[in-house]
Amino acid sequence: MKNGSAFLNDNAQNIAETMVRDAERLRIGVSTGPLGERLIDAGAKAQGSVEAGLRMAEVATGGLASISTAVDRGSGKWPFNVEVRSSQPVLACLASQYAGWNLSSGDYFAMGSGPVRALAQVEPLFSTLSYKEKAEASVVILETSKAPPPAIVEKVAKATGLKPENLTFIYAPTQSMAATVQIVGRVLEVALHKANDLKFPLDNIVEGIAAAPIPAPHPDFLTAMGRTNDAIIYGGIVQLLVSGPAKEARELAEKLPSSTSRDYGRPFAEIFKHFKGDFYAIDPLLFSPAEVIVTALETGETFRHGGRDVAMLEKSLG
Amino acid sequence: MKNGSAFLNDNAQNIAETMVRDAERLRIGVSTGPLGERLIDAGAKAQGSVEAGLRMAEVATGGLASISTAVDRGSGKWPFNVEVRSSQPVLACLASQYAGWNLSSGDYFAMGSGPVRALAQVEPLFSTLSYKEKAEASVVILETSKAPPPAIVEKVAKATGLKPENLTFIYAPTQSMAATVQIVGRVLEVALHKANDLKFPLDNIVEGIAAAPIPAPHPDFLTAMGRTNDAIIYGGIVQLLVSGPAKEARELAEKLPSSTSRDYGRPFAEIFKHFKGDFYAIDPLLFSPAEVIVTALETGETFRHGGRDVAMLEKSLG
Amino acid sequence: MKNGSAFLNDNAQNIAETMVRDAERLRIGVSTGPLGERLIDAGAKAQGSVEAGLRMAEVATGGLASISTAVDRGSGKWPFNVEVRSSQPVLACLASQYAGWNLSSGDYFAMGSGPVRALAQVEPLFSTLSYKEKAEASVVILETSKAPPPAIVEKVAKATGLKPENLTFIYAPTQSMAATVQIVGRVLEVALHKANDLKFPLDNIVEGIAAAPIPAPHPDFLTAMGRTNDAIIYGGIVQLLVSGPAKEARELAEKLPSSTSRDYGRPFAEIFKHFKGDFYAIDPLLFSPAEVIVTALETGETFRHGGRDVAMLEKSLG
Repeated sequence: MKNGSAFLNDNAQNIAETMVRDAERLRIGVSTGPLGERLIDAGAKAQGSVEAGLRMAEVATGGLASISTAVDRGSGKWPFNVEVRSSQPVLACLASQYAGWNLSSGDYFAMGSGPVRALAQVEPLFSTLSYKEKAEASVVILETSKAPPPAIVEKVAKATGLKPENLTFIYAPTQSMAATVQIVGRVLEVALHKANDLKFPLDNIVEGIAAAPIPAPHPDFLTAMGRTNDAIIYGGIVQLLVSGPAKEARELAEKLPSSTSRDYGRPFAEIFKHFKGDFYAIDPLLFSPAEVIVTALETGETFRHGGRDVAMLEKSLG
Repeated sequence: MKNGSAFLNDNAQNIAETMVRDAERLRIGVSTGPLGERLIDAGAKAQGSVEAGLRMAEVATGGLASISTAVDRGSGKWPFNVEVRSSQPVLACLASQYAGWNLSSGDYFAMGSGPVRALAQVEPLFSTLSYKEKAEASVVILETSKAPPPAIVEKVAKATGLKPENLTFIYAPTQSMAATVQIVGRVLEVALHKANDLKFPLDNIVEGIAAAPIPAPHPDFLTAMGRTNDAIIYGGIVQLLVSGPAKEARELAEKLPSSTSRDYGRPFAEIFKHFKGDFYAIDPLLFSPAEVIVTALETGETFRHGGRDVAMLEKSLG
Repeated sequence: MKNGSAFLNDNAQNIAETMVRDAERLRIGVSTGPLGERLIDAGAKAQGSVEAGLRMAEVATGGLASISTAVDRGSGKWPFNVEVRSSQPVLACLASQYAGWNLSSGDYFAMGSGPVRALAQVEPLFSTLSYKEKAEASVVILETSKAPPPAIVEKVAKATGLKPENLTFIYAPTQSMAATVQIVGRVLEVALHKANDLKFPLDNIVEGIAAAPIPAPHPDFLTAMGRTNDAIIYGGIVQLLVSGPAKEARELAEKLPSSTSRDYGRPFAEIFKHFKGDFYAIDPLLFSPAEVIVTALETGETFRHGGRDVAMLEKSLG
């Protein structure tokens, strides 16, 4: 992933091609949009699948993370988990997976995720990351029930310098199986994003491994959003290996668990309602795994804070 | 996997080719039978291996399931498990993996498993499945200690319209390592098969993930058969995501665990002896995982029933 | 892996090529040494990564083992584990992975690991193994902070009959992330090596699966060495399937756990200091997993001995 290469975008493009090839197996719909863009419906009209969600998560991380399901009977009532590991967590999660590019237009609301963000470079986060790609084609991940309108396709084309026919949009609504898996697959990403909010230097985050239970998808948008967030906030676990002063690692471990947030302690859907659906009124520090392990490479010390909240998982995930 | 395609059979054929290539590593024997059929001995005269069993399980599911071993210390005395996940569980398990084709002849008793069944279409189950393949070559999995006699090779050739030289038979007796892994790898399949017996509509079974401990192989046929069944019946876990009415999902969860069977409560080998070795006298509803989780996509509800029976595992698996 | 083939060495070479291709992603340094040998720095001047450690472990086992990370919440404070499984454990671990070739020269101390040992055939162990390879190229794994000096490159070239330009040396010091993973990845190998010390016939070891927690790397050599050893000695688990008399399997299970060693009961670093740094004064029987499961294929019996020592893991791994 040399700065200026197409590493993440090429990986994503290759994984998207496997999705197209395996469309029937993944129960996804592949079509061409009005501007020639490729559309992959992974959970809107198409039913989609867990496997489609795993591939979306791989696309979202630009191929830089290992993402798999695993059975863990030590996990109580939710034995089926998503595991995510990356030796390039900052690029995988922040330069690519984070849903940080506002791709809304009119009544279409979407936050773009995926390596396309490293081409577009429109988010302030990229000045912190200082990583940029150049590519012939790209893939955009959207947590929506509708394909992007032409205005959005044009916006992406313009920001990336790519023609619409070289863009693939993979979309699935929060309620779908694929989105559920893909969203819970952000269990490592939210830890990194919060670390950045806490001003922990991203260059010092060297390794990340994380897991969270896969909640049952729910047909109601609010409940589905609640569950995927709660799976991470009340059920997720992450370990980061960090360089730099051990003191900073210790502070990160103390501050990183979701339990440090003002809004911790209620199911996410309730919090969302409390703030009348204003996502940005919610304390951003809520978005992180329940259980945090940070290892300081400087001293070899490991700091553990937080823990899963089974009662809250019962309440939210059922 | 378009109906009429060769998807499962081509996958199986490709995996069989890797077995032939890696024969020494897998400790399997590859030879040509009297009619030109390819024979793979994975545990009869050849010693075979766990790895051979995993590949047989992949062949058996027509490449539509992810099958792996995993260590789970929450699993008590049997920490080594087989995990199976499929986003096409009905085709993987029922159209392919289920050992449902009677390939017995004279004193040779065998039930054929694998995607060859989707070519042959001789079982009533296929009228329920309405899935059919056409292929140039196929693979048959047999839980036997002997290669199929010419009469059986001819029977398969005739039913599939394939020449014997385009057929591969992979066989391993119940007592072998490969068969142990391959049989326990049916932990998802038995759940689907029982769901069908319970008249749950197969089209509504969307996703499946399951796990069961790998028992120690046993040199005695009856004990080996007992253990592989008990690993699932008393130690297996499955989660299904189903569409359709939540009421039906709830009923499925209630009825699916092995504990609902009349014959539950004794090691399988004892039950088998009780019925004087008449397999078909045993309650078919016994064959399912101990612990069942069913999620209704309609309402997002999850229903849990059953549970592992450690005392019985101690008794049977040792 | 026919005797006389290049199976393990070719596998290792292929994996090494993927490391070179992914050097930036793995944070490893690739260069050419003074004699034309290829040098891969996976944790000395280069920072390296967990992923680099996993690939080193794959190289070390000549591609004959499945090696992965996994989250296991039943594992207490150290939920992130390395899992190793092999259906050819003797060749993977003893003919290849064991760090048994003394490649020291002057003040350079190193024990060579990897399939190069099956070419060189200089260790007495190979008369027991009677497995030999012939290859065009080979890979050497070294647990060191420095590239091998020319005298060592020449020694390897001479013993293998290969030109230096056909040799790859992958090195990483004990304190590095990559070495941590690679060393803990020996959890299966130490079981086999001790079995050999106990005169258990290697030909009877048929299958092996093992796991151990990944400790935090530590900047101090002694502490790092202590942790990687303790992760196995006090936290590792192994299951072996063995042929031959069940009586021998039972004895192996009794004698194999680390707890049977004279030196068991203190963190490894303390033991090392007690013996004034004389590694060879330490009871070699200490080096084995904490928890042992041996299954006798002869009778289907399973024998379990030992167990993880959480207090000691707390003390050593933190």
